[in-house]
Amino acid sequence: MGMVGGGRGAFIGAVHRMAANLDGKIELVAGAFSSDPKKSKLSGKDFFLNPSRVYGSYQEMAKGESELPVGERIDFVSIVVQNHLHHAVAKHFLEAGFNVICDKPLAYDLKEARNLRRIVKKSGKVFALTHNYTGYPMVKEARDLARKGKLGRILKVVTEYPQGYAVGDIDNKNDGKIASWRTDPKIAGISNCIGDIGTHAENLGAYITGLEIEEMCAELTAFIPGRKLDDDGNILIRYKGGAKGLLYASQISNGDENNLNIRIYGTKASLEWHQEDPNELIIKFHDKPRQILRRGNGYVCNSAKTNTRTPFGHPEAFIEAFANVYMAAARSIAAEVAGKKLPENPDFPTVEDGIRGMAFIATAVKSSNSKAKWTKMLK
Amino acid sequence: MGMVGGGRGAFIGAVHRMAANLDGKIELVAGAFSSDPKKSKLSGKDFFLNPSRVYGSYQEMAKGESELPVGERIDFVSIVVQNHLHHAVAKHFLEAGFNVICDKPLAYDLKEARNLRRIVKKSGKVFALTHNYTGYPMVKEARDLARKGKLGRILKVVTEYPQGYAVGDIDNKNDGKIASWRTDPKIAGISNCIGDIGTHAENLGAYITGLEIEEMCAELTAFIPGRKLDDDGNILIRYKGGAKGLLYASQISNGDENNLNIRIYGTKASLEWHQEDPNELIIKFHDKPRQILRRGNGYVCNSAKTNTRTPFGHPEAFIEAFANVYMAAARSIAAEVAGKKLPENPDFPTVEDGIRGMAFIATAVKSSNSKAKWTKMLK
Amino acid sequence: MGMVGGGRGAFIGAVHRMAANLDGKIELVAGAFSSDPKKSKLSGKDFFLNPSRVYGSYQEMAKGESELPVGERIDFVSIVVQNHLHHAVAKHFLEAGFNVICDKPLAYDLKEARNLRRIVKKSGKVFALTHNYTGYPMVKEARDLARKGKLGRILKVVTEYPQGYAVGDIDNKNDGKIASWRTDPKIAGISNCIGDIGTHAENLGAYITGLEIEEMCAELTAFIPGRKLDDDGNILIRYKGGAKGLLYASQISNGDENNLNIRIYGTKASLEWHQEDPNELIIKFHDKPRQILRRGNGYVCNSAKTNTRTPFGHPEAFIEAFANVYMAAARSIAAEVAGKKLPENPDFPTVEDGIRGMAFIATAVKSSNSKAKWTKMLK
Amino acid sequence: MGMVGGGRGAFIGAVHRMAANLDGKIELVAGAFSSDPKKSKLSGKDFFLNPSRVYGSYQEMAKGESELPVGERIDFVSIVVQNHLHHAVAKHFLEAGFNVICDKPLAYDLKEARNLRRIVKKSGKVFALTHNYTGYPMVKEARDLARKGKLGRILKVVTEYPQGYAVGDIDNKNDGKIASWRTDPKIAGISNCIGDIGTHAENLGAYITGLEIEEMCAELTAFIPGRKLDDDGNILIRYKGGAKGLLYASQISNGDENNLNIRIYGTKASLEWHQEDPNELIIKFHDKPRQILRRGNGYVCNSAKTNTRTPFGHPEAFIEAFANVYMAAARSIAAEVAGKKLPENPDFPTVEDGIRGMAFIATAVKSSNSKAKWTKMLK
Repeated sequence: MGMVGGGRGAFIGAVHRMAANLDGKIELVAGAFSSDPKKSKLSGKDFFLNPSRVYGSYQEMAKGESELPVGERIDFVSIVVQNHLHHAVAKHFLEAGFNVICDKPLAYDLKEARNLRRIVKKSGKVFALTHNYTGYPMVKEARDLARKGKLGRILKVVTEYPQGYAVGDIDNKNDGKIASWRTDPKIAGISNCIGDIGTHAENLGAYITGLEIEEMCAELTAFIPGRKLDDDGNILIRYKGGAKGLLYASQISNGDENNLNIRIYGTKASLEWHQEDPNELIIKFHDKPRQILRRGNGYVCNSAKTNTRTPFGHPEAFIEAFANVYMAAARSIAAEVAGKKLPENPDFPTVEDGIRGMAFIATAVKSSNSKAKWTKMLK
Repeated sequence: MGMVGGGRGAFIGAVHRMAANLDGKIELVAGAFSSDPKKSKLSGKDFFLNPSRVYGSYQEMAKGESELPVGERIDFVSIVVQNHLHHAVAKHFLEAGFNVICDKPLAYDLKEARNLRRIVKKSGKVFALTHNYTGYPMVKEARDLARKGKLGRILKVVTEYPQGYAVGDIDNKNDGKIASWRTDPKIAGISNCIGDIGTHAENLGAYITGLEIEEMCAELTAFIPGRKLDDDGNILIRYKGGAKGLLYASQISNGDENNLNIRIYGTKASLEWHQEDPNELIIKFHDKPRQILRRGNGYVCNSAKTNTRTPFGHPEAFIEAFANVYMAAARSIAAEVAGKKLPENPDFPTVEDGIRGMAFIATAVKSSNSKAKWTKMLK
Repeated sequence: MGMVGGGRGAFIGAVHRMAANLDGKIELVAGAFSSDPKKSKLSGKDFFLNPSRVYGSYQEMAKGESELPVGERIDFVSIVVQNHLHHAVAKHFLEAGFNVICDKPLAYDLKEARNLRRIVKKSGKVFALTHNYTGYPMVKEARDLARKGKLGRILKVVTEYPQGYAVGDIDNKNDGKIASWRTDPKIAGISNCIGDIGTHAENLGAYITGLEIEEMCAELTAFIPGRKLDDDGNILIRYKGGAKGLLYASQISNGDENNLNIRIYGTKASLEWHQEDPNELIIKFHDKPRQILRRGNGYVCNSAKTNTRTPFGHPEAFIEAFANVYMAAARSIAAEVAGKKLPENPDFPTVEDGIRGMAFIATAVKSSNSKAKWTKMLK
Repeated sequence: MGMVGGGRGAFIGAVHRMAANLDGKIELVAGAFSSDPKKSKLSGKDFFLNPSRVYGSYQEMAKGESELPVGERIDFVSIVVQNHLHHAVAKHFLEAGFNVICDKPLAYDLKEARNLRRIVKKSGKVFALTHNYTGYPMVKEARDLARKGKLGRILKVVTEYPQGYAVGDIDNKNDGKIASWRTDPKIAGISNCIGDIGTHAENLGAYITGLEIEEMCAELTAFIPGRKLDDDGNILIRYKGGAKGLLYASQISNGDENNLNIRIYGTKASLEWHQEDPNELIIKFHDKPRQILRRGNGYVCNSAKTNTRTPFGHPEAFIEAFANVYMAAARSIAAEVAGKKLPENPDFPTVEDGIRGMAFIATAVKSSNSKAKWTKMLK
């Protein structure tokens, strides 16, 4: 694979590389790791790349790789640049004939996102979006239970995503720590908190339940003085079919780390999953004992089994889940490159997830800007 | 004490009696346990009462007790009848010169509640409302921390109160199990779920933080076919001063029992308390280790200490917390009966809590009835 | 009931009174609360007793109560004096014709214990020993599961009882805080830690599993300088029939409170119960999801149901469990007093539990004194 | 790196490869994956190796790699064969001039282990043993706290390692599932359960506390009919200096997975770490609130920081901890290969850990064979 962005010191680039490395089936061979060609070269050296394949810009990279013989060139590019560049880079590589794995959110705004969807469809290439939380085995088990009707009809979905890392900024104690790309509307887009993590929460709920949001009432707040974008958001949701939802995300929830939790309540049973304790899935009933389902056991569904690397009790976590997204995308990419039929119903987030995520952000901001009026989900 | 309501088979009456019994300082000596005089007599026998003080109606009881010499008559009455009778019974005893401990909610509606407040004030008697969750020692510790500024400025309050006991009714499997007084608007008032448990959640937050609700957006739902009153409610809150809140309550959350939880996020620290694990209080910081404060230790505040009966590790729970409300009220009542000065800032819920609770219910229903528009808190 | 010991400031006396009070069926009417008659009188006043029934010594009390007419005198005496007096007081009241509820351990040593058994048998009176942890509903559920074979054949029992309250004494920081009755061999007997809490652990395991200890290897330690008795003990156990056990108790386990836990491993399933989280029972299987059984649900056994006062999710704890022992004993006592047939298989610890507990202590000390050699269980 | 053993289907080989792959700094380039040359070839293909470097035996591999030019040959070999072959393979590669990373236990028996130590010393090569649990960041934090005296003087160590995967064999339900190498004394050595997992428990305690075992009393049991080796072991420990310990390991603890836990009690504080919840470390005090230390926070020690890949709340787990052992060994190996000075106090388990582990096994078996007499630790 090749990588655009993710040079020295970039958190998400390192995660993408570890996820790609883990199974020994994907090799990083090319990259344009920084808009500064020097930094890009240094990063390439860190990663033991052939200097001839470390490029000064993504345009050079697409060109250079295209000129290599089939079989030597990269099979796909992994895009880990800032939000406002996703569209341009993805477009460039898709049109140059490369498959793409792209960090979320899909694009800078909903309009760009829709445009990118057209490009993806036209290209016929594989496009994967790293909503990585869907890669956890016990999330797959949750989806399986929900989709098979084990919960009955779903009545209510509660999704929480509090983080606390930005709370120090309220008193200006973290000054300079929080990267500007999170809070600068020109880079991040119209939302910070809902855009960055609220979309993960939305995606998780949709992945498990398949429910579609009909309308929402969103209260976004910028608690940090001087911030143009939200650092906290609380949303009431009405799903199609009558289920109700609450979803909240926050970056100022003191002491919470990456506390993504989902509770899904159905007529037959309900479930809970906690990202910080990802190897367990809790099933609750009103008339029989609770069940704790644990990763790696024989009783979990096939998808939970095939997305697992270690036996029960040998915990798996964030990187392994991320790697599951990579491996699922890689299977489709390998088929595409080999000219074979793509797998049906591949289990990784696609451009459609990206569109829905961008619509979620746009709707939440629209609702919040109208003093939190109920607002129909955009498309 | 005397008791109105709470005869054989009544859950909350039994809890009130255990709470009163626990410390050996309050003795049940009289009662009108049922509107059916026969049942009342049988219940009185169960409780080893002198038959002459088991009455056929609350009116008889107030009269009978008033005619006993001072020192022999009851010091207070405990009211555990259905919601729509709280006002009448409380009024009757207050006007007859008795102190009152009354189950929540305060009254059938906000108007009655306001009227009752006038009567309480005029009477000069002690009036306690059993918002029992404030009786837990670690809730008192939470209040102490919040009030002393240990959390800094409070930014966000998340209060959850899911129960699941009614979910079977959605498919009519629980038929007849759920008492009609919960779901009949003539008895319960304008709300079931928010009225019954949402008010506990509201009270808990107010007790700890002291924050006042400015406005809310409430989405109440009756999931159970044929129900006139809500069995689920999700509420966004704006507090005076800028803090934000989410509060939800539910009776159809499959497998949840009495899952009252509160998370309070401040600029300096945040806290979590879970009613089903009541001996712990979790304090979280963004820059130092989490702390687990546990009941019975030397480091907790004075109020947490004096409201505790057993050493650390010997858990206390629901009844003990309930008894704390009784004991706090009893101290005021004993002073009143003795003609002494009442304790200042007594630590039990009063008619003011009751008014605020009724206003909370009324505002939530008003918002929900207007399709969940933001609605100013009534008073 | 009457009480011997348990005056002002005594922890366990207060617990016994709360346990007796809780259900409104037992009334404290007489007592000899202290060996100092003045203190006894003051305590009697605290408890609103008739001064004529507050005695200066247990001998006076037995005499005074015996002289009251049947129906007025106490039905039983609750003994909460120091260990070395249990035998004398119990003997005195049994021989005077009173039923007895006695705090554990049964006696000062095994010899006294055996003697007391003879006296109990001869008296025909009810004798209950407050191994209170067996009063928890979910412990009763555990017993039911084990006895019904739901765990299969039991292979292994791990019982932990670490407390940390005495650890400060190692550096002499708690000076004077730890009551001398715990550490003075003349009062406490031959063991402190194993005698005080190790016996609770032993009793809990025996109550649930019914397994009999065949031999043990015990390593008792006095970590606190100057102590004559153990403050820590670790024991390997061989049960009759081939099961193995570990049991440890400690008073110097820094930061542990009253951390009694039991894990029972069987061929079909295993279970875990944690005293500090007593409303749950965890069942584990090697081939299906874990189950969490929770107090108050319809699926628990009859004994767990009848020993419960509040609905699920309204937690019960230490005092309620203690009260279950009192209520079970009281049912037998009421039958005895009424001259009726006693209940069969009454569910409270008896003099036999006491004998076994004293034998456990004696065996552990014998083993430890022989440099922790394997030692046959005494009888 | 090269690998010996660990072909298709082997669990631990796959773990070693993932651990090596994760950071993109170690590349698998050669291997003798099976004693069957055909299987070895197929495995090499799975791993995308150059066929010329996939060998039919470890002897061929050592020879083949030695003949490659410096810079092309492997820097080290990873040994993941069965226990009884560790010594021969390690010896062969060390004597051929290669660094070694070896799976535990170090050797078949203590004698072999001592011999291997001599060979390692003589060779001057790096030798790392994958006691992987020491790779967890919060274990490193625990070590740092203990070594800096934050716990005070250590009084007691409780280490548990129950697994349940073999319990089905008691009723012959798992027939054939449990690999023979675990239970055949010719392959596994003199112990199964203590050898396979008890040594991990021993290593973990020693890594954190530095305490040395003086003597032990071990009760090993083979619950599974027909087994020659233990599947359960309970051990009392006396450490030099007066601390006491309990250590148990089991493969028949129904429903436990890989439930390695350690509790260390000191005069100032105690700590708990749970392998199945590895991102937390619990610190307990007798006079102040408990603390929960969490991986990735600024307050953890330097070693915990540098052995972490993702931010707080993005959990890490088993493979990442394993990779930490690999990376620490790789730093020493890189220095050795480059002819530079080796890092001082490298943070990975060495042949000394291996010797101590083998001595632990030998002592436990010796004690158990003498009916669990106290036995001095062998060396």
